[in-house]
Amino acid sequence: MKILDGKKLSNTLKEEIKKEVSERLIQKKKQPHLAAVIVGDDGASLTYVGSKVRSCKQVGFLSTLIQLKSTISEKKLLNQINKLNKNPDIDGFIVQLPLPKHISEERVLLSIDPKKDVDGFHPTNFGRMALELPSFIPATPFGIIEMIKRYNIKTSGKNCLVIGRSNIVGRPISILMSQKKSYGNATVTTAHSKTKNLIKLTLNADIIISALGIPEFLKANMVKKNVVIIDVGITRVIDNTNPRGYTIKGDVDFTNVLKKAGFITPVPGGVGPMTIAMLLKNTLIACQRKD
Amino acid sequence: MKILDGKKLSNTLKEEIKKEVSERLIQKKKQPHLAAVIVGDDGASLTYVGSKVRSCKQVGFLSTLIQLKSTISEKKLLNQINKLNKNPDIDGFIVQLPLPKHISEERVLLSIDPKKDVDGFHPTNFGRMALELPSFIPATPFGIIEMIKRYNIKTSGKNCLVIGRSNIVGRPISILMSQKKSYGNATVTTAHSKTKNLIKLTLNADIIISALGIPEFLKANMVKKNVVIIDVGITRVIDNTNPRGYTIKGDVDFTNVLKKAGFITPVPGGVGPMTIAMLLKNTLIACQRKD
Repeated sequence: MKILDGKKLSNTLKEEIKKEVSERLIQKKKQPHLAAVIVGDDGASLTYVGSKVRSCKQVGFLSTLIQLKSTISEKKLLNQINKLNKNPDIDGFIVQLPLPKHISEERVLLSIDPKKDVDGFHPTNFGRMALELPSFIPATPFGIIEMIKRYNIKTSGKNCLVIGRSNIVGRPISILMSQKKSYGNATVTTAHSKTKNLIKLTLNADIIISALGIPEFLKANMVKKNVVIIDVGITRVIDNTNPRGYTIKGDVDFTNVLKKAGFITPVPGGVGPMTIAMLLKNTLIACQRKD
Repeated sequence: MKILDGKKLSNTLKEEIKKEVSERLIQKKKQPHLAAVIVGDDGASLTYVGSKVRSCKQVGFLSTLIQLKSTISEKKLLNQINKLNKNPDIDGFIVQLPLPKHISEERVLLSIDPKKDVDGFHPTNFGRMALELPSFIPATPFGIIEMIKRYNIKTSGKNCLVIGRSNIVGRPISILMSQKKSYGNATVTTAHSKTKNLIKLTLNADIIISALGIPEFLKANMVKKNVVIIDVGITRVIDNTNPRGYTIKGDVDFTNVLKKAGFITPVPGGVGPMTIAMLLKNTLIACQRKD
């Protein structure tokens, strides 16, 4: 068994990005600049965005945090996005989800210039990714394929089970894993809420990427020996022994599956830390494309 | 066993489109207009395009065939496409592939206005399809889901095996079949050239969509009873008993699989005729969106 240490790998990636930025500055090239838009004052969203902004500082990016009131009209938010689209100093930006109910997330996402859409949620980027054209890959699937590459995990001809079909994890990673690429060429099955006999599928899988959101759902008797486990689940479970009152759990019964798996991501410290690194990577790519 | 009669169904669809066009004309709405661009004089391409243009006449569409010399420069072709993008009378157009080697198919496809891209090959349409936004679905997968709908084939929770991962068939139909839709909700596995033990997958499938291109590859002993077979393969096999010198064969050993299958498409007369009907449907949709 080998633990896929996302925390360590994300630090390596950030170091690489930092070095790249230093070299850019020496060469008098543009310093990457990420902007983040947040609407309202949801605690979790503020934490996420704060962490993204701090990471920018770590790697030498400029960052701009635009905090808007939860009562802002959709029109004013769209105007704000349009300004970011037009501002040549901003290489990429994200709009933190969820948005207040009176604002259409779809209209907002569609209004972002695909060239600055470093979250990779715009249909143009999604389509370009699926058709193997240069694009921004959403951070979570991008983090997973980066992990697979860096740990030299063999994927060609392997049975890969993806549990979940969301637009930001299950769907894109299902596509990426089956593409004719070094990290792909797997025979991918996408499972979801309507799937019957999931255990038959998990038992047959060489690689399981789980984005289900049910804590410790995947047990040791449901997987085969030497399986590769990528656990994308993040659920807060009440835990009075923890000073925060909760513990973060993944989709996998880590303690027991660990003994059987070939590779496994812990939660926390697996896929999670990779996502911010990949957002930074996308921002760097956006900046480099303008060189 | 029930034969999925694509020829009959495509005629029904054309009748419906024709009726819709007549009503549009009575209501003084715009008559749909499809343009087709063909570069060079490849026999098969001319046949396909000719058939598309004839179908336009059948349903009451206007059609324009733009035939360009194989020596045309990429720049001139792109200018031609730009004219079609700007011409308000053209609702949709297609550029027949393949193109001569000195022209980049990628650049050409990307230059088509997604709003007129009735082939659904542009990344913006692909991404919109994958993210379940209004789009143009490429004709072959669109034809397959239309068949599934019209024959009331149950797909929810079924194991669907897609053989092939091309951008125009395997990839989009894999996505569509697993979406949360009446024709979807299947547990989809995408197989391809790197897949090992394909027979294990075919034997486990409730629905097989084959876009492999190996004539009569899929035998009766490789499928389970009552399987649904959608055969997208079209291969010309030398046949001296046929006046044309060849016979068209699908991926499936039709005569024998027929006895075991619940539903099956013949080749020819299955998915093939559906594609032109769906191109017409996309053109009608493009025209309706401007109402």
